[in-house]
Amino acid sequence: MRLPLCTFRTLLFRRQTANQQRRGLSGAAMRLVQFRRQGDEGVIRVGVEQGEGSGVVDLKAFDPSMPSTVRELLELGDKGLECAQRALVSGQCVVERSNIHLLSPVLAPEKVVCVGMNYRDHCLEQNAPIPTEPIIFSKFPNAITGPYDDITLPSESQEVDWEVELAFVIGRRGKHIQEEEALSYVAGFTVANDVSARDWQMKRNGKQWLLGKTFDSFCPLGPALVTTDAVKDPHNLNVRCLVNGETVQSSNTDQMIFKTAALVAWVSKFVTLTPGDVFLTGTPPGVGVFRKPPVFLKKGDVVECQIDQIGSIINKVV
Amino acid sequence: MRLPLCTFRTLLFRRQTANQQRRGLSGAAMRLVQFRRQGDEGVIRVGVEQGEGSGVVDLKAFDPSMPSTVRELLELGDKGLECAQRALVSGQCVVERSNIHLLSPVLAPEKVVCVGMNYRDHCLEQNAPIPTEPIIFSKFPNAITGPYDDITLPSESQEVDWEVELAFVIGRRGKHIQEEEALSYVAGFTVANDVSARDWQMKRNGKQWLLGKTFDSFCPLGPALVTTDAVKDPHNLNVRCLVNGETVQSSNTDQMIFKTAALVAWVSKFVTLTPGDVFLTGTPPGVGVFRKPPVFLKKGDVVECQIDQIGSIINKVV
Repeated sequence: MRLPLCTFRTLLFRRQTANQQRRGLSGAAMRLVQFRRQGDEGVIRVGVEQGEGSGVVDLKAFDPSMPSTVRELLELGDKGLECAQRALVSGQCVVERSNIHLLSPVLAPEKVVCVGMNYRDHCLEQNAPIPTEPIIFSKFPNAITGPYDDITLPSESQEVDWEVELAFVIGRRGKHIQEEEALSYVAGFTVANDVSARDWQMKRNGKQWLLGKTFDSFCPLGPALVTTDAVKDPHNLNVRCLVNGETVQSSNTDQMIFKTAALVAWVSKFVTLTPGDVFLTGTPPGVGVFRKPPVFLKKGDVVECQIDQIGSIINKVV
Repeated sequence: MRLPLCTFRTLLFRRQTANQQRRGLSGAAMRLVQFRRQGDEGVIRVGVEQGEGSGVVDLKAFDPSMPSTVRELLELGDKGLECAQRALVSGQCVVERSNIHLLSPVLAPEKVVCVGMNYRDHCLEQNAPIPTEPIIFSKFPNAITGPYDDITLPSESQEVDWEVELAFVIGRRGKHIQEEEALSYVAGFTVANDVSARDWQMKRNGKQWLLGKTFDSFCPLGPALVTTDAVKDPHNLNVRCLVNGETVQSSNTDQMIFKTAALVAWVSKFVTLTPGDVFLTGTPPGVGVFRKPPVFLKKGDVVECQIDQIGSIINKVV
């Protein structure tokens, strides 16, 4: 097998920096992405952003032994993240943004775990009691779509709503994880829109939320998986949702009732968590269904979900 | 790459039968399984049973180009099933039952779709109205376990119950599938136990059923994926569940309110179905929670779920 030219150019550089990088991953602040190159539509690639919105280091071009998806990269553990860090430091194998189509930073996870009623201010908005235990529901992975891809309005629903959410991704396998250790199981954070068909969530399907939450394209995710070390305090981040440029949700992750570590510990009582599992941590107030009168998404709307330090996803409704 | 001896032996035979098999898959009645050979614990293999409980043809030994999982085999479409059929007809590459550990016929599907309240007699049992639409919920794939593997009783639940169910597996990708065409999207049928922690399903987690349904090992599945052509009428099969040898559920799939084709059509309104997706079609009466007094599973119990023409799964509670 012939190595890409890029790899040959960086071999010398890698030898020089390997010892330095072997100190470990503490401080390995990275923005991992998945993308397709223009004209190479079938092939998913893992990248490392040089900065939010900047060029992307093509990990497989840097080291052909690296996998093609972030989920597989996480399954490699420290070895994979160390290689990604070396790729970033190298400054080599950079693809310009204009030449890529950014995908969700995780595709085909085993689980998309969602948390309901997890913002104090969102509970107050609907006169609901503050939950004493997390309320866990799910989407199927088919719902995941890219950070700038379209949300398809299904003809089956007349009440499609937005929900900006902080998401996190599991980095290593675990069961019965103690809360004190839970953050070490988290690879990093990203932004999600927990798009919700309120008619199906609240009035039909025996009041099981699943169907209203899991239509194709109902989980825009991205733009990057921002590693835990790159986020100063994930529970003190401003969170906003804008519809057609107007701010409809504006809160802070300090309103979360069950925070990242508590959610990891809780869910791992029930299921074995596995690299790539995505958690959506709940939404603040300002959703359409509780407005008077209610407001729902329509074709042509543009929804932007922003979280400080993490990034922004922008999805058109079609 | 060196081909296994087994493959050389069958090359001549395959040439002889290829023309005959190319007529198409109609009538391709097979029992597909996944297994590990004794002493080869890490490697999953696809097999074709020579008969219920008989020796298993090792598909990758027959043709090394074939994949290692049933999900990947289904993704190949007719090509994969034709090869499996040739392998079965060949009578070669057979592994004795005593040398294998049988796994669930599907692992790591994108979706485990479950249907609630789908047997007329089960609705009557709990004085519940007959649903006018399917009630859809889910398990995470971590719940899937093998046909003879243990069910682990979690310390978090005191009310773990049994539910024998006919399961089916999607064979090809589709969205907005018409009911008249829906059966052509089904690869085949298998047996499931929709193990349920009633305390978590019915009283906690905001009455969202997910957590009570998705503990690790709460979805024993198998023993084989029996292809659609091998089942005369999937909606006229006796269904039984036995706990410690005593029959606790006994009904027939003719009691199903929404049958296979209707469920495929319904769920495909919401999500794109993909090869390997597993559907659990609901349970008949006789579950423990509605007995007077209620009965739940305890350590040491043995649960057997049987469906005519499909097979039987036997799981010990530990």
